[in-house]
Amino acid sequence: MSVPTVTASARNATPAVDLGPAVALSCRECGERFPLTPAFACESCFGPLEIAYDLPAGDPEGLRRRIEAGPANIWRYAPLLPVPADVAGKPNMNPGWTPLVKADRLAAELGVTGGLYVKDDSGNPTHSFKDRVVANAVEAARAFGFTTLSCSSTGNLAGAVGAAAARAGLRACVFIPHDLEQPKVVMAAVYGGDVVGIEGTYDDVNRFCSELIGDPAGEGWGFVNVNLRPYYAEGSKTLAYEICEQLGWRLPDQLVVPIASGSQLTKIDKGLKELIATGLVEDRPYKIFGAQATGCSPVAQAYKAGHDVVRPVRPETIAKSLAIGNPADGPYVLDIARRTGGAVEDVSDEQVVDAIKLLARTEGIFAETAGGVTVGVTRKLIEAGVLDPTLTTVVLNTGDGLKTLDAVEPTTGPSAIIRPNLDSFREAGLAS
Amino acid sequence: MSVPTVTASARNATPAVDLGPAVALSCRECGERFPLTPAFACESCFGPLEIAYDLPAGDPEGLRRRIEAGPANIWRYAPLLPVPADVAGKPNMNPGWTPLVKADRLAAELGVTGGLYVKDDSGNPTHSFKDRVVANAVEAARAFGFTTLSCSSTGNLAGAVGAAAARAGLRACVFIPHDLEQPKVVMAAVYGGDVVGIEGTYDDVNRFCSELIGDPAGEGWGFVNVNLRPYYAEGSKTLAYEICEQLGWRLPDQLVVPIASGSQLTKIDKGLKELIATGLVEDRPYKIFGAQATGCSPVAQAYKAGHDVVRPVRPETIAKSLAIGNPADGPYVLDIARRTGGAVEDVSDEQVVDAIKLLARTEGIFAETAGGVTVGVTRKLIEAGVLDPTLTTVVLNTGDGLKTLDAVEPTTGPSAIIRPNLDSFREAGLAS
Repeated sequence: MSVPTVTASARNATPAVDLGPAVALSCRECGERFPLTPAFACESCFGPLEIAYDLPAGDPEGLRRRIEAGPANIWRYAPLLPVPADVAGKPNMNPGWTPLVKADRLAAELGVTGGLYVKDDSGNPTHSFKDRVVANAVEAARAFGFTTLSCSSTGNLAGAVGAAAARAGLRACVFIPHDLEQPKVVMAAVYGGDVVGIEGTYDDVNRFCSELIGDPAGEGWGFVNVNLRPYYAEGSKTLAYEICEQLGWRLPDQLVVPIASGSQLTKIDKGLKELIATGLVEDRPYKIFGAQATGCSPVAQAYKAGHDVVRPVRPETIAKSLAIGNPADGPYVLDIARRTGGAVEDVSDEQVVDAIKLLARTEGIFAETAGGVTVGVTRKLIEAGVLDPTLTTVVLNTGDGLKTLDAVEPTTGPSAIIRPNLDSFREAGLAS
Repeated sequence: MSVPTVTASARNATPAVDLGPAVALSCRECGERFPLTPAFACESCFGPLEIAYDLPAGDPEGLRRRIEAGPANIWRYAPLLPVPADVAGKPNMNPGWTPLVKADRLAAELGVTGGLYVKDDSGNPTHSFKDRVVANAVEAARAFGFTTLSCSSTGNLAGAVGAAAARAGLRACVFIPHDLEQPKVVMAAVYGGDVVGIEGTYDDVNRFCSELIGDPAGEGWGFVNVNLRPYYAEGSKTLAYEICEQLGWRLPDQLVVPIASGSQLTKIDKGLKELIATGLVEDRPYKIFGAQATGCSPVAQAYKAGHDVVRPVRPETIAKSLAIGNPADGPYVLDIARRTGGAVEDVSDEQVVDAIKLLARTEGIFAETAGGVTVGVTRKLIEAGVLDPTLTTVVLNTGDGLKTLDAVEPTTGPSAIIRPNLDSFREAGLAS
């Protein structure tokens, strides 16, 4: 089928927008540069666009001090993001600066001796990392004058867009697969925007949004992950920035990152490279490992088969936030995993549930299924000798267990139901 | 019925524990002081005990700098809490430093012109303010050598205790009413501790725990809200500290605080007074307003009737986290509301749901029913001319909407379900 794209044009004559250090859209394939507009594909080669910057240079100590004096959210990194310098004063959800938990009890169970950390992004305002990317998209939407914020979503994004639109005073109209987890549906709708359930998979929803954007029915809409995608995607870099700053301005040796579209992993890599380029961290090798659920593992399959392209699959997994069967950034993920000496691995739904419980039991972190995927893959890669347990390792938890209760509910409940007296309690066998 | 109490004794000869600036237990009724032990009632008069401090004095600027240089969690206030100085390095959930959201869109709807703020405690690790109090209780449990952490809970506390025990490597055994919201039950159990459902109300659960603590069946257990209650309760002071620091080290004019046991409200008042005493904020009047759901409003009823004592009620409200029919700190709440020029008000369950949606729609904050209670009461008090809209007002949201989905689910869902094509979308009437 033919999918309309919004291509950038070098001849575009809209007035320049102020998005801080962002200076252009740049094609990831051919490198051609375009003015900053709501576009996501290259006019020349149809390659995906990303943001090019004029980053602060020459004074890493000054930049570090400026960041450390900033707010306890992603806007401390405004000098490295496509946002205006006064972003922290605008109505935005202000996500980020989530805990990097030193997971000593999990490390002991997994045999990691080099330091194991969980970057717990469930602490964001709508309890997933999506608040980071949406916060950046909101600033782009504001700059381009959009008054409706939209997206295709596997659930977390819909909630993040709904909340961010409410905070910013924009209309929201978001698109989700009709069979999402109920908490995610309610969370998308509670902010008062329109939520449209689509009979189909996430990939169907995504294709529909690409059609809508070329149609009068969607005119003037900012689709955070379509026509605002280059701006939106940059939000994931803040995960890399925070991890390094929280480690004391140091690169971790190994990172385990979930793969849905693959955008998050590629932007984390971009963020790490920017930290090196600006002198904020010392240049040393790091490995990035990608994690998928076996029921939707097109990138892991391509990695294991030694392929450079990713063959789409029809998702069938409880890890719905990762259930993108046709991941746009798949080839870039393969490149990064191979270039950095990482890998891409997958785990079964049963292993996902086990890993959710392992993380909860050892660290008191109740992760979404996506967090079960990364912790499960970490365990699998250690057992396989691929991940080095003597190195500093950071595992991402990108969402919240409350949104995927179904995954653990059948095997998680009260130890006993008793009457309110001591005899009844003693009978339950739980006494001291 | 006779309820065993754990009374403090002046003759207690256990070795002194290091809980930072905490120097004694002090009776809130007769003022008698006792050594720091796991006790909650005065040996002489059976009054409730609270923590007495040797607070830093004479150098407010130095103290302020020390706090500002601390971590982005409650341990920045370690000099004012019953915790050891090196608390930030111990395995703990490290809650706090949650957003104080300038709620301009909500203010516009409510007609507040003096600055309206929402202190959004859903950003805590288990998404309620309970992480604050439990974090303090964990440090006391560690100091006293307890290896099992327990509590009676309306739900949020059980999750907070489960997570904190997991992080700290303690056993958890928590007690909840058997008919709690399912998300709260799963969240209590997912961390691997024991969860005991009790056939009865929260007040039955609470009475049972008081019995258990005097029985060999509960020997050696740290009940965070019973024998560790004085330490635990201090965690609520951090809400006061953060609000003032986030306002630029300034007291708000008005605060709207939910009432369950009433402990949170009394400790916020204590925290504000400590900030004044240590010179961290300028002394000026503030008013504290208490908020209850009409279906469990014993304190509001007493306030309106001009009584000094609170007559217990049997709770019947969707705001289950506030459903304590026999609130221990009720009389203290009445005293504070009257002394500061505040009030205690209640709203119906329908008003609670409306307020949850109002807050979500205007600010992108999805609150628990308890947050609907405070926002609803704020609206009611403004309309009644009791709360002054020209003054700086802070409203607490102490929990997360994901835990009380039932409240909004019947009236919150997709605007439309469509097939993935433009015609189907246009038919839904949501197009641009």
